[in-house]
Amino acid sequence: MSPFDDIRALLRDLPAPDAQALAAARDRQAQLTKPAGSLGRLEEIAEFLAAWQGGPPHVDNPLVAVFAGNHGVTAQGVSPFPPSVTEAMVANFQGGGAAINQICKTFDISLKVYELALSQPTGDITQEPAMDERGCAATMAFGMEALAGGPDLLVLGEMGIGNTTVAAAIYCALFGGEPEDWVGRGTGVDDAGLKRKADAVRRALALHKEHLGDPLQVLSRLGGREIAAMAGAILGARHQRTPVLLDGFVVCAAAAVLHALDPSALDHCLAGHVSAENAHARALREINKAPLLSLGMRLGEGSGAALAVGIVRAAVATHNGMATFGEAGVAGKEA
Amino acid sequence: MSPFDDIRALLRDLPAPDAQALAAARDRQAQLTKPAGSLGRLEEIAEFLAAWQGGPPHVDNPLVAVFAGNHGVTAQGVSPFPPSVTEAMVANFQGGGAAINQICKTFDISLKVYELALSQPTGDITQEPAMDERGCAATMAFGMEALAGGPDLLVLGEMGIGNTTVAAAIYCALFGGEPEDWVGRGTGVDDAGLKRKADAVRRALALHKEHLGDPLQVLSRLGGREIAAMAGAILGARHQRTPVLLDGFVVCAAAAVLHALDPSALDHCLAGHVSAENAHARALREINKAPLLSLGMRLGEGSGAALAVGIVRAAVATHNGMATFGEAGVAGKEA
Repeated sequence: MSPFDDIRALLRDLPAPDAQALAAARDRQAQLTKPAGSLGRLEEIAEFLAAWQGGPPHVDNPLVAVFAGNHGVTAQGVSPFPPSVTEAMVANFQGGGAAINQICKTFDISLKVYELALSQPTGDITQEPAMDERGCAATMAFGMEALAGGPDLLVLGEMGIGNTTVAAAIYCALFGGEPEDWVGRGTGVDDAGLKRKADAVRRALALHKEHLGDPLQVLSRLGGREIAAMAGAILGARHQRTPVLLDGFVVCAAAAVLHALDPSALDHCLAGHVSAENAHARALREINKAPLLSLGMRLGEGSGAALAVGIVRAAVATHNGMATFGEAGVAGKEA
Repeated sequence: MSPFDDIRALLRDLPAPDAQALAAARDRQAQLTKPAGSLGRLEEIAEFLAAWQGGPPHVDNPLVAVFAGNHGVTAQGVSPFPPSVTEAMVANFQGGGAAINQICKTFDISLKVYELALSQPTGDITQEPAMDERGCAATMAFGMEALAGGPDLLVLGEMGIGNTTVAAAIYCALFGGEPEDWVGRGTGVDDAGLKRKADAVRRALALHKEHLGDPLQVLSRLGGREIAAMAGAILGARHQRTPVLLDGFVVCAAAAVLHALDPSALDHCLAGHVSAENAHARALREINKAPLLSLGMRLGEGSGAALAVGIVRAAVATHNGMATFGEAGVAGKEA
């Protein structure tokens, strides 16, 4: 018996996309009044949604789920902001004043914020494990709560001063390379702060090196509760066949843990954007996802992925709303 | 007296952005509850709108203006679709069945379609000028009608079987290179069709070579009424200080004519997307615009730029709606 037994059981039983719904969506795309393929990735998105939703694509009940956590590693001077900003930003989300609130309003997306014991930061990963296995597994299970309202599109976001350092440690453990390859400016550290981030990652990896062969150990040791919760949410979404939009550097660290366990575990996920955080582009390549947007954003909160909901809405609207060549009386190619 | 005198007068008198509104927008950005610069291009867009709109940015009355024209050069076998498709697609726009209708609905954008004498195609540019100067100037003036309803954001789109060949000819005349550098698959020509397109461009440039030193001559000789109308619309928008979103390969050919006349003539324009049409990325480099989206689209109709309206709406919403650090009681950097 391991605390991760339930998680591993879910990973052994990943649902597949609906081949029939996918074929129907492709057939419809071919009849719409446009040159074949001319809507580019909008066509890919519509077909992806159809395959996972098991019928015509829809975005009727999208949800941005923002998970917030605090991190013991902030003691190592890895962020220019104090950890109290995590709680202050959660209050800002609840008051409607953050960037994610405005983006959700723009695209008619529900927003839920999940606080993860903010007053008790995870362990400082340079000194001890972030979480124990039981706590990590419980946090993953908690993350699945994001599916409770039955969203038909799940957008993941996060808030947590210090969490780009944690994410860099996870990537470095999973994908190799040097700490310097994975750390970035985060909320805006200077050169000395960047060096402290790399140093913290190096010391954390050295401390936990005997335990990093298993991606779930990587998650619990290097942690971040919000990252564990998001890994759970992605896995829970898969079992509800709910498509997921991944956000930036920290969200993709949660996805990367699942990818390391089973590369097909992210088949129901799209990358909403590539952020300006140094190594996010590399992280996306490692998990084999091509981002929908590239706008130099590096805010977190799910902001980049929420922005991509506009693109997904347009993909659904064109797929479902366009006339066919037959309906419109438009001659086809070489008619 | 030349038919282009009025156009040249407008080009000599281009309004500048509002430096005060720009400074106010930048000042506000610095106070919003986010790390400085973390909204990336959303911040750039909000500041751009403020500068041109002369106050807080807004998107209350956006318009997609689709200009439709027919082209004598279709006689050279440059498109797999018959020219009758231009009129059929205009009917499809009016009936609400095209991609652009669905995208406009998704982002609450008005749509107007301007037909440009579809039953009388422009001259076959391999044999004669597309338009005479008087007709070209009148069409540019007609394009300014798109500003009549006072849109606060103008999105340009087009429809016209054969017009990627015309656009390629304009680019080749303005920016040099070989016809093969500029022609692409358009609505989906095969290799033989692509060769016919390059051949048509080569013959057109040879025929008109004595007249291609002046960008307005390039426009009238190589033409496309929809391209002339869009050039007029861009210039008219500038004089109303209305920001413009450029769409794909054909729309940017209209912009390129103005850019060749005065590189600052496009300062009020953003590139909505880079299309999958072969040379659009190069065209954007020539007119010095970085696209907001890159989704492999190549449909025209203004579809890529209309999709970018979602991004612009989010930029405005975050700029105007976010709390400041002071309002939210969030500690700033190194507080």
